[in-house]
Amino acid sequence: MRALVTGGAGFIGSHLIDALIASGYKVRVIDNLSSGKLEFISTHIENGDLEFYEGDLTSISDVNKATKGVDCVFHLAANPDIRLGTRVTDTDLKQGTIATYNLLESMRINGVKKIAFASSSVVYGEDAPLPTPESYGPCLPISLYGASKLACEGLITSWAGTFDFQAWIFRFANIIGERGTHGVIFDFIHKLKNDNSRLEVLGNGLQEKSYMEVKECVNAILHVYKTQNKQINLFNLGSHDTCSVKRIAEIVTEETGYNNAKIEYTGGSRGWAGDIPRARLGIGKMLSTGYAVEYNSEAAVRYTARSLINEIGL
Amino acid sequence: MRALVTGGAGFIGSHLIDALIASGYKVRVIDNLSSGKLEFISTHIENGDLEFYEGDLTSISDVNKATKGVDCVFHLAANPDIRLGTRVTDTDLKQGTIATYNLLESMRINGVKKIAFASSSVVYGEDAPLPTPESYGPCLPISLYGASKLACEGLITSWAGTFDFQAWIFRFANIIGERGTHGVIFDFIHKLKNDNSRLEVLGNGLQEKSYMEVKECVNAILHVYKTQNKQINLFNLGSHDTCSVKRIAEIVTEETGYNNAKIEYTGGSRGWAGDIPRARLGIGKMLSTGYAVEYNSEAAVRYTARSLINEIGL
Repeated sequence: MRALVTGGAGFIGSHLIDALIASGYKVRVIDNLSSGKLEFISTHIENGDLEFYEGDLTSISDVNKATKGVDCVFHLAANPDIRLGTRVTDTDLKQGTIATYNLLESMRINGVKKIAFASSSVVYGEDAPLPTPESYGPCLPISLYGASKLACEGLITSWAGTFDFQAWIFRFANIIGERGTHGVIFDFIHKLKNDNSRLEVLGNGLQEKSYMEVKECVNAILHVYKTQNKQINLFNLGSHDTCSVKRIAEIVTEETGYNNAKIEYTGGSRGWAGDIPRARLGIGKMLSTGYAVEYNSEAAVRYTARSLINEIGL
Repeated sequence: MRALVTGGAGFIGSHLIDALIASGYKVRVIDNLSSGKLEFISTHIENGDLEFYEGDLTSISDVNKATKGVDCVFHLAANPDIRLGTRVTDTDLKQGTIATYNLLESMRINGVKKIAFASSSVVYGEDAPLPTPESYGPCLPISLYGASKLACEGLITSWAGTFDFQAWIFRFANIIGERGTHGVIFDFIHKLKNDNSRLEVLGNGLQEKSYMEVKECVNAILHVYKTQNKQINLFNLGSHDTCSVKRIAEIVTEETGYNNAKIEYTGGSRGWAGDIPRARLGIGKMLSTGYAVEYNSEAAVRYTARSLINEIGL
């Protein structure tokens, strides 16, 4: 089987590729290297298991080249920075929604009909009950990133309904781990590296979200992809509990050894406009497929802090 | 109050304008006249109650001109032909999703923060229980038109969450009535006008959907807009029951007087790829606001058939 991974040089993409190649897939990657890094996948390129295209999903010709001759697509490429959408309001429209349209249309033309998609818990918005099951509605995303993820889900299900595609849609919790290129733990380490006397935390620190370790996330993706065979398979992926931003700040200061750094809160319930203060996914549907998640949120945070401190250096 | 109505020269738009002007609004319209007709609103233009801009929401400059100085926007412009999306796959992306992004961004820049939006029952997809309440999830639209409506909903709620907009989102049943420019009754009349010996029906005729008369629809929009004041107000708008396509064919042949026309079914459960065979909206939330719908689906169909036969001529 030959799989295309969009955003395959990125954080989650590169871990997915490790898992795909370990289970015998031939892999092609399209990535514009805006946040991904070739070093994440260079071993596979050298081993001849991976074909790399530097290209952008907003370019039709790049996309057409990428989708030709593959059996399925794992679509992970997107703007990874949720906050960027508040300043440049067409970022998620172009890199999310329009890019996904280009991908689907190119798949249709090239006869590729299976797509797995990385969606997000933020599609639910902030009024959802916690833990939030897949059956919750209406989805009222409050970030432009979330709006784009919801738009992509709809495009994918409409290509399924109209052009007989098969789809696996994954609504991710906060995915963290080795090779992380953004997010709260990454930011905290960089802040402490710049100034180890203090750590600025956006919001009041009481934001509380569910964190899933990235290798568990990609194993869950492959488990669901291989075992679930409806036309549309939509699953939350996450861990059993949550961790507060305050607790993450404490863990990062502990793990860096900068225990004396003063943790300073900018205040307010949100980290930024469009931030959802509390999120936790219902994962009963995922568990019912036989996939068991091991790390709880705090363990995933601590493991990630250690890994990223090692990668980034202090 | 000055309201902008996008698609205001169209079928639903022109009825909404009648109701807005009757309740004292000053109205501006932007419409590209692709399916709308100036004659639908010409009386209001002559009376000086309505400012008309011929323009397209895919043009930023047209949109900026339209949103300047209004208090609220009723956003009805869209590709009206669901079937077109299966042939020209970027129709709904451009005329729905990207157009709505342009509108929201222009509203943000011009300081206009209230938007009412015409969404659709097709966002729910075909696995939803009937009648379908607003709280049903996940929404898995099967048409490209439905995907675009879901994308627009998400864009609107994200502008609410990120830029403090207030939104009224209406998921419409099949809206029918005077000035209809498309849809099953319109098509049947035109087919009988061409050849009154037979009537071709797409599908097996057992498709069964909920129909709402357009003046009731626009009255419901204004009622909910005026009485509901959350940041995001999402409502199904429909009637109490359904009517089958077979029954519509019978009513149209009766009303045209072509009782001997042979009704011929193309077969299959769907009218076209992406068609949802059975749809009925839960309208409890709408009724709870105090808006009472009078016509049932069959009465709305018969009234519409009479009106359109009169408009189209035989």
